[in-house]
Amino acid sequence: MERRLDHDLDRVRQSLLKMGGMVEGMVAKATKSLLERNNDLSTEVIEGDRDVDHLEIEIDEACHLILGTKQPTAVDLRFLVAVMKINSDLERIGDSAVNIAQSVLQLNDQPILKPYIDLPHLSTLVQAMVRKSLDAFVRRDARLATEVCESDDAVDGLYKQLFRELLTYMIEDPKTVSRALHLLLISRNMERIADHATNIAEDVIYYVEGRDIRHSSSAPEPFSKAL
Amino acid sequence: MERRLDHDLDRVRQSLLKMGGMVEGMVAKATKSLLERNNDLSTEVIEGDRDVDHLEIEIDEACHLILGTKQPTAVDLRFLVAVMKINSDLERIGDSAVNIAQSVLQLNDQPILKPYIDLPHLSTLVQAMVRKSLDAFVRRDARLATEVCESDDAVDGLYKQLFRELLTYMIEDPKTVSRALHLLLISRNMERIADHATNIAEDVIYYVEGRDIRHSSSAPEPFSKAL
Repeated sequence: MERRLDHDLDRVRQSLLKMGGMVEGMVAKATKSLLERNNDLSTEVIEGDRDVDHLEIEIDEACHLILGTKQPTAVDLRFLVAVMKINSDLERIGDSAVNIAQSVLQLNDQPILKPYIDLPHLSTLVQAMVRKSLDAFVRRDARLATEVCESDDAVDGLYKQLFRELLTYMIEDPKTVSRALHLLLISRNMERIADHATNIAEDVIYYVEGRDIRHSSSAPEPFSKAL
Repeated sequence: MERRLDHDLDRVRQSLLKMGGMVEGMVAKATKSLLERNNDLSTEVIEGDRDVDHLEIEIDEACHLILGTKQPTAVDLRFLVAVMKINSDLERIGDSAVNIAQSVLQLNDQPILKPYIDLPHLSTLVQAMVRKSLDAFVRRDARLATEVCESDDAVDGLYKQLFRELLTYMIEDPKTVSRALHLLLISRNMERIADHATNIAEDVIYYVEGRDIRHSSSAPEPFSKAL
């Protein structure tokens, strides 16, 4: 019975990692579609989201089945609760990648507003957070998960800088409004992906150490995160 | 033992409804702070979020404890899984109310851009969705939950209309950019609250009927939802 439970938990772990790989790929591809002005890649991201949605439901169902039939306790129970939460965050990362791809399709119809420098940098940071949070999950590494939470500040800083720059474009030249707004949306979605990676890292810490560190910093969000 | 489980589940239900009442109040107050240009109300919303964050953790802990010690099955298990998901959506509704309050603080520093007509209407629709989704949970009413999912289209329509109108302001008069952007943020946060209410309604259907209706419409999101 014990071994059977381990087997079931391992299958869930594999599915979650597959899901992680899929949404990581979506974020990378959405960024590439922006930099290379490639509509086909954007469309692939949008269409690929259906598979992520299906996998989310499959993983949830597998977790419910194990909870209902195997009565896991202690670390196994924490593992399953963490998987359900990480599953939901991964699905939302996929949604953000779709939103980015949709904005890219709009941007590719118009001349380029400016060379993209900070945005690819932001995307690289954010993708690293997603990968690290999943590595921390696989290795049960609470220290690595803590690093992910800490890197969220760098993302917020870069996002705020982009926000101010794009707002200036919009105010100085009305012809840029639509493009700058799409670039703002893209930055905002990147920043949200970093938030989801942080949530995943917090779930890893809960799973590994049994302590809930959410909301442990009570400072309200800065304004520009509201976009 | 059976009765003890019922008692535990009932306490969790009461806590979740308390949390629902708190975030509903935050959305209402954030809207009032916009309409009455009242900074004190915005500040109350921002400060009240800490209590919601604490309650979220308490509810999660209670669910984990019941899962780990009482081995609930069937409808009781679905109830607990639904509570954990609804809990997370309620917490995010609280975050959106905070984002709205933060934008209101920025708007109240400047002259009013235009009389607010569609925005209070959007807020009323969205608040009704949150209330109905929680009523559906209390009454185990899958039909009412389905109504909530259906009303999301009206919210999306109103949001798109507001988006186009505010974009026109920004393009026609650079002096309006900052204010129009904040009103866009507020509308976007309202629309996200409606999405969370829809998630809650889907969780109610899963809890009551045991079927997962998420992603049953596979149409990609329209662009303007990306904001």
